[in-house]
Amino acid sequence: MSFNARTDLALEAREMYFENSQLETEAEGVAAEEQECDFGIKVTRVFVQNEKGRQALNKPEGTYITVELPDPNETLQEAYEEACRICSLELADLIGKEWDGTVLVLGLGNRNITADALGPKTVDSVLVTRHLLQYMPEEIDERLRSVCAISPGVLGITGVETGEIVKGICDRVKPGLIIAVDALCSRRMERINNTIQLTDTGIVPGAGIGNRRMAIDRETLGVPVIAIGVPTVIDAATIAGDTIDKIIENLKINAEENLPLYKMLSVIAEEDKYGMIKQVLKPDYGDFVVTPKEVDTVVENIAEIIANGINIALHEGVTLDDIDRYK
Amino acid sequence: MSFNARTDLALEAREMYFENSQLETEAEGVAAEEQECDFGIKVTRVFVQNEKGRQALNKPEGTYITVELPDPNETLQEAYEEACRICSLELADLIGKEWDGTVLVLGLGNRNITADALGPKTVDSVLVTRHLLQYMPEEIDERLRSVCAISPGVLGITGVETGEIVKGICDRVKPGLIIAVDALCSRRMERINNTIQLTDTGIVPGAGIGNRRMAIDRETLGVPVIAIGVPTVIDAATIAGDTIDKIIENLKINAEENLPLYKMLSVIAEEDKYGMIKQVLKPDYGDFVVTPKEVDTVVENIAEIIANGINIALHEGVTLDDIDRYK
Amino acid sequence: MSFNARTDLALEAREMYFENSQLETEAEGVAAEEQECDFGIKVTRVFVQNEKGRQALNKPEGTYITVELPDPNETLQEAYEEACRICSLELADLIGKEWDGTVLVLGLGNRNITADALGPKTVDSVLVTRHLLQYMPEEIDERLRSVCAISPGVLGITGVETGEIVKGICDRVKPGLIIAVDALCSRRMERINNTIQLTDTGIVPGAGIGNRRMAIDRETLGVPVIAIGVPTVIDAATIAGDTIDKIIENLKINAEENLPLYKMLSVIAEEDKYGMIKQVLKPDYGDFVVTPKEVDTVVENIAEIIANGINIALHEGVTLDDIDRYK
Amino acid sequence: MSFNARTDLALEAREMYFENSQLETEAEGVAAEEQECDFGIKVTRVFVQNEKGRQALNKPEGTYITVELPDPNETLQEAYEEACRICSLELADLIGKEWDGTVLVLGLGNRNITADALGPKTVDSVLVTRHLLQYMPEEIDERLRSVCAISPGVLGITGVETGEIVKGICDRVKPGLIIAVDALCSRRMERINNTIQLTDTGIVPGAGIGNRRMAIDRETLGVPVIAIGVPTVIDAATIAGDTIDKIIENLKINAEENLPLYKMLSVIAEEDKYGMIKQVLKPDYGDFVVTPKEVDTVVENIAEIIANGINIALHEGVTLDDIDRYK
Repeated sequence: MSFNARTDLALEAREMYFENSQLETEAEGVAAEEQECDFGIKVTRVFVQNEKGRQALNKPEGTYITVELPDPNETLQEAYEEACRICSLELADLIGKEWDGTVLVLGLGNRNITADALGPKTVDSVLVTRHLLQYMPEEIDERLRSVCAISPGVLGITGVETGEIVKGICDRVKPGLIIAVDALCSRRMERINNTIQLTDTGIVPGAGIGNRRMAIDRETLGVPVIAIGVPTVIDAATIAGDTIDKIIENLKINAEENLPLYKMLSVIAEEDKYGMIKQVLKPDYGDFVVTPKEVDTVVENIAEIIANGINIALHEGVTLDDIDRYK
Repeated sequence: MSFNARTDLALEAREMYFENSQLETEAEGVAAEEQECDFGIKVTRVFVQNEKGRQALNKPEGTYITVELPDPNETLQEAYEEACRICSLELADLIGKEWDGTVLVLGLGNRNITADALGPKTVDSVLVTRHLLQYMPEEIDERLRSVCAISPGVLGITGVETGEIVKGICDRVKPGLIIAVDALCSRRMERINNTIQLTDTGIVPGAGIGNRRMAIDRETLGVPVIAIGVPTVIDAATIAGDTIDKIIENLKINAEENLPLYKMLSVIAEEDKYGMIKQVLKPDYGDFVVTPKEVDTVVENIAEIIANGINIALHEGVTLDDIDRYK
Repeated sequence: MSFNARTDLALEAREMYFENSQLETEAEGVAAEEQECDFGIKVTRVFVQNEKGRQALNKPEGTYITVELPDPNETLQEAYEEACRICSLELADLIGKEWDGTVLVLGLGNRNITADALGPKTVDSVLVTRHLLQYMPEEIDERLRSVCAISPGVLGITGVETGEIVKGICDRVKPGLIIAVDALCSRRMERINNTIQLTDTGIVPGAGIGNRRMAIDRETLGVPVIAIGVPTVIDAATIAGDTIDKIIENLKINAEENLPLYKMLSVIAEEDKYGMIKQVLKPDYGDFVVTPKEVDTVVENIAEIIANGINIALHEGVTLDDIDRYK
Repeated sequence: MSFNARTDLALEAREMYFENSQLETEAEGVAAEEQECDFGIKVTRVFVQNEKGRQALNKPEGTYITVELPDPNETLQEAYEEACRICSLELADLIGKEWDGTVLVLGLGNRNITADALGPKTVDSVLVTRHLLQYMPEEIDERLRSVCAISPGVLGITGVETGEIVKGICDRVKPGLIIAVDALCSRRMERINNTIQLTDTGIVPGAGIGNRRMAIDRETLGVPVIAIGVPTVIDAATIAGDTIDKIIENLKINAEENLPLYKMLSVIAEEDKYGMIKQVLKPDYGDFVVTPKEVDTVVENIAEIIANGINIALHEGVTLDDIDRYK
């Protein structure tokens, strides 16, 4: 099988590797670990260790941490706090050692389209301190680190590559660390709006749309870039392909009574199903990207969790100094 | 074939009748006419004339007019004005003769979920005059008719059936005509956000979700009820089913090289495909309803067109420019 | 002196009585008590006991409770929780005994004008349960009471008196208690957006604008009506009058060097200053009502406090965390 | 008299010069011309010609054009179009000769506070073309010029001086002309939300608040900077001072019966009234800046007019209808 649905999640790239290879072992150059936490939260860490891993998953070398929240609308205070805490710990881990200077948080995406507004909404809740430390340092709690935060807009709205704007700002602000937050694309409806990916590989804004864009990463900006994202959209072709898969799987379970149909569908599954679906849908839909109807209410909640994860991770002593993580 | 995708459009119910019956003639009790207008706008009128027609299309007896706009984001002033004009003419036709007393415009749906906010957004642009005619009649242009407009909210937000709220308001306001605007569900992605349906059969708020709700129609309220809607959502099962159809259709065209696959897929198509897909998707997705990512920008435009269609239709001899003057 | 600045707060009506009468004792028919709480929160209860009290304060007979929050943007979790708790206790006190049936919460005001959106925003955060108790009672926590909540809009937007809409809804829903939330007008800039008034006298929507409107109170609706409000606007004439007062007061303190000026200004103060200012301002400003520039960020916070005060007061033994779980 | 109310309008600085000097001739180094246009629109051009003019008006040397709209909510299509047209003509005049390269439009101010959102809202309606000309030049109407547009946020939100962000972006984009749009402060309530000032002197973001900020002007950025603004706020002290003035003026007219009061108030007027009021108000209000309650609905309209003025001025031979086509 060679199902190549569009996804920004390393977690799903790994899933697809297993599906396509029919193997149950990790690809060479890839390692992974999973952890179940309280409140049904699940953490998966995928490590793309070298060029071979990169080819297997089609993702740059680096660490990809996925935090899956069972219900993004869960508002039980403790579950919410645990989600923030886990995000902050994983983020702190990714950052690794101490950084020098200011942290620049980037809210990527289009503020006017809800499904794309995760970045700007997160930035709205990030604790910004750089100007206070600069203009009134004596009045500021000494545990606070210097943080600034900008939502640079998108190419279609500003007329300028996001990477260019960010480069210009970096040249002036000279941050020691960048955290870029953006909406992502998933291949599974069940991950939409409830999965947070953190990675140390940076990000290419609007990459999903197929254009070649300037990356926001260590190479282009000269400082470490952590990218945090949540899948908020899925393309129509993926929904269709996913459904055909599920029908096949379902038929397999009830194999006896459906045997002929199962065989037939397997034929499709053996072809490049996703490519075929894309081609068939193209004349009418082009790249039809969809999002759940309720996206408005969910994006707000998950942006808040990410912002607090960032806030706790960056400011010393605000972090929970819990050694036994995720008990 | 028995493809029963969920749709609120009579136009699509008729399409499905043709597909399922393999006939090219209208069902008994159904009549229809189509009209091409300027700027690529297309008007289709479907008449469900009696009980037989009702059964064939699974839609109440009455008239269903569909105005299809080639590009809902087209903002060429003349195309926009033509769309408003066509809506107003079709609406005036549906209303038929003169009505007595106030017109009550209802903006159904949830204002906080963009894909469901068509009704409230339309109401925001309707020219409301009832209070002016009541409190300062001498200052008001005599061509203006009495119009009031309310967005009653949705059951999940208010805790009260929308039909109950509307009934209570009608008992006080005693309108002579009701126009209810609501977001609809389509079975075709290409109709999402660019098709306006006007009907004299009224509406059942939130009917799509499968619950039994109190209708907003002539029977329950005692006055004519025109319903105006735009499909803004599509369910995931429909996208999947639609895609399988397109694959089959595509294979049919290139029949020779794909013959075996075509036959196989036709087997699925002969089953109750939609039901099967729903069943397969259920455990993971439930009723997963999606909307295009760009819904935010489109709903605003089409709500404006509907509101101006209503404004022009209700107030005698009043033009778009006049309307602006009163707002 | 007879300073008659426009105010919706009984607390300020009482202040004005003291100023105008030059007395330090309560008016006949008026009683009051003050209480300092944690986090700088202050509660004042004014009781208008009879017709004499009504004339003295120009407010209907009843109880008026004012909760003053030192900083509405205070985001310390405990201060926020204390504000919610105090609101819920005072509200429970006002309601007094048990009520029968559903509680109807009304969000009065215009959702599209921030300074007027307090009611609709509060309603957005009220825990609505009536439909759950009606359609799936066995699944609902037995401590939950039946609550429904509607934002009926304003006359200028709907074309229908708010009182008419509410009456129509009450006739269908038949609530046992009504809580109406609305934005108010203050005479003191320092109370804008940080003072919550709760009263058992009901409310007249849009009363401030000078029109005679249908009241939302026990007399018109037949059930108890609690009104909750926050001053979000002040009129320009009040700011001017207030300033002249402050200049006078200031001159009084430094009386010796400013003696002649003090005398002069006192002449104005002895006239009907507010009336004079209104008359002078009228040709240019009419009823120019202003609100602080930052109103957007504050209204959200205080609406949340009121909503949670309502949520805790209505549902027996329910805490802030429980509420989150049901939303 | 020495009334020094806070204002960002050169028009009002000139008014104050006349009031304070009691002269009816222009200050040395200042010239001005007024023009009445259709639909009650009034254009005033104030030229600060040299250092003397600068001192007299306390405004940098340059040209200040004020377009006063009689009613910002006037939506008669022709009046709206005339307002756009006049803005575009005056802007073209200010720009003067042809520029080279891209135009960078800056939307200054805080998007989340309505009274401060004029800049970001204007940018939302500016026709952005730079990316189209860069990536698909052959498909673009040759009359279109290269325009990009960014809303850089405010210091309190981003933690970075707006001027720094703009400088960084300019270093990458290298524009040939900058147009900066921002909300202003007026001293007259009757000018709030209906007066557009265009100037070639640039702007200091957040200057009103009293801090020393990095200017956005030719000197700091090396290219011409046009600033466009609309007063949306007024400070409480100005309203008070303005009222005392009006009382005095009013008394002057009816001098005989009010003679003693007139004399008395004139004493205040002879002092530094604004300073005195500020001082008196300070302990309670600090810098209490207010905006009309209806600011939400007005800012949207006037931002649209400015955006279209910019669109028409920048793109040769392009009309309002053409612009709609490209958006």
